[in-house]
Amino acid sequence: MIQKLIENIKKTNAPIVVGLDPMLNYIPEQIKKAAFAEYGETLEGAAEAIWQYNKKIIDAVYDLIPAVKPQIAMYEQFGLPGLAVFKRTIDYCKEKGLIVIGDVKRGDIGSTSAAYATAHLGKVTVGTQQLTPFGEDFATVNPYLGTDGIKPFLDVCREEKKGIFILVKTSNPSSGEFQDRRIEDAADAASALSVSHTEKDGGSRTLYELVGEKVAEWADSCMGETYSYVGAVVGATYPEVGKVLRRVMPKSFILVPGYGAQGGTAADLAPYFNEDGLGAIVNSSRGIIAAYKQDKYASFGPEHFAEASRAAVVDMIEDIDRALAAR
Amino acid sequence: MIQKLIENIKKTNAPIVVGLDPMLNYIPEQIKKAAFAEYGETLEGAAEAIWQYNKKIIDAVYDLIPAVKPQIAMYEQFGLPGLAVFKRTIDYCKEKGLIVIGDVKRGDIGSTSAAYATAHLGKVTVGTQQLTPFGEDFATVNPYLGTDGIKPFLDVCREEKKGIFILVKTSNPSSGEFQDRRIEDAADAASALSVSHTEKDGGSRTLYELVGEKVAEWADSCMGETYSYVGAVVGATYPEVGKVLRRVMPKSFILVPGYGAQGGTAADLAPYFNEDGLGAIVNSSRGIIAAYKQDKYASFGPEHFAEASRAAVVDMIEDIDRALAAR
Repeated sequence: MIQKLIENIKKTNAPIVVGLDPMLNYIPEQIKKAAFAEYGETLEGAAEAIWQYNKKIIDAVYDLIPAVKPQIAMYEQFGLPGLAVFKRTIDYCKEKGLIVIGDVKRGDIGSTSAAYATAHLGKVTVGTQQLTPFGEDFATVNPYLGTDGIKPFLDVCREEKKGIFILVKTSNPSSGEFQDRRIEDAADAASALSVSHTEKDGGSRTLYELVGEKVAEWADSCMGETYSYVGAVVGATYPEVGKVLRRVMPKSFILVPGYGAQGGTAADLAPYFNEDGLGAIVNSSRGIIAAYKQDKYASFGPEHFAEASRAAVVDMIEDIDRALAAR
Repeated sequence: MIQKLIENIKKTNAPIVVGLDPMLNYIPEQIKKAAFAEYGETLEGAAEAIWQYNKKIIDAVYDLIPAVKPQIAMYEQFGLPGLAVFKRTIDYCKEKGLIVIGDVKRGDIGSTSAAYATAHLGKVTVGTQQLTPFGEDFATVNPYLGTDGIKPFLDVCREEKKGIFILVKTSNPSSGEFQDRRIEDAADAASALSVSHTEKDGGSRTLYELVGEKVAEWADSCMGETYSYVGAVVGATYPEVGKVLRRVMPKSFILVPGYGAQGGTAADLAPYFNEDGLGAIVNSSRGIIAAYKQDKYASFGPEHFAEASRAAVVDMIEDIDRALAAR
């Protein structure tokens, strides 16, 4: 799938991903009204509204973009009907030729991590059958539990030729509380594995650098043709960190949240890309799917929300293209 | 719910939790055969087998224990039908008076973290209705993203009087890769908050200690009568760490995985408890639910698997009771 992601990026000339993170208050009234009329003010009604909203946005933008990133939490909060629409959205996007990155941020150990990998990237065996539970192409994964949590995902990635993006440095204000802490040299940590690292500030480095180094190791063990199946999440809101991590993880695609609504600008993003113009994919969620709520696109009105999303995608592609051309 | 958890523990005199982490290969053939005959070798067939298996185990042990901990990954791998059985299991356990700890290890930021908190502990607003998506009493949460990831859970905990267990030191062999790293003093980390900490080894401490200190802060902001709504996960396999973290987080219940199958013994666990005999709850999953597969309980046979589970619960309670009496 890393090859297909690269092909899709080259075909569209758009290293972007649209985050399908629907909130009920983004959805125009006419859609909610119709869904509630059919299913009532129920989880099913909310799920139907989300589905109709997603479908119109996907129909409006799919030819411009390589990939989408549905955020499962936004579906999980509507229980089983919400998760049914998460699955329906995945299937629909795949029919349209899009790469689907399941933003699930799962992370556990051993057989539990294997179960999550199966749920989102693999096939589960039931008797003599091999069945697909959710079937995303990529999933996001949390590294806090170490290699035991990542290895089961690597096994499934190799088997299915799918991929993961591991959280390294997240885009939120408090991401530094743990991720930015400087850690002492590996030799001091009894249970830590011996790892080589870039000497810096007398040998110490931050937790995100250490996690980035582990990502690079995992990436080496799981290579596609030019890039690895193993990527990383690095927020757009910390461009200096992006520069460092680009060097630490040369074979990994970086999934970059935080562009637009969270404050990251296109100029900030240039260092996340490699010389080949690849190696990063920039996410925008509400900046695209709720574009009609911004002053800039307000003239579309709620009835033409999907066209507003298309206009926002066009603008985002141009914005990033300019920034990459200028570097 | 922390009060109800404490009441349930006192009533049963059993500070334990049964992990409902079904794997198809734990389930006796007669149950799978019946489920596949009705639903085929499908996700629905697998889910039905899991439901029948869970129900018999719950019926056999519910009067002995205060709480259960379904591991959502084991259901998620069977897609939507699997998650429907996760929900059905939660509802059934609550009917039986059990506290339900959703082992979901979710973690994200801002509105996404709020959506996860809503999904598992809260209610979601649809039009004029307030609906319950999954409805666990507690959920496990990953701390890697910092306060931004935790705060939305605290808000829902206060609102709903529910609770969370935050991963601090996990039970797996590679948990030390990141969690055991010694970090430099907070003053060096530009974006880190100033926190007081127990001086040790020239001022440095491990990541798990730092996370434990943050848990203690979050716990203080979210108190029940004697214990906080905010607990922690600390594996049974690192008893020295348990001793340190017990001191660092005095108001938090510690959820302890790793007893039995993963190698933690009852004697190891005594330091996880406070002087009041409370403050910890020890999980066993396959040691209970797949007890009939152990030599010790093999005489029950696969047809009496639920009675084997009951015998294993009785033995576990005695084992922990002895260890606590001996300290």
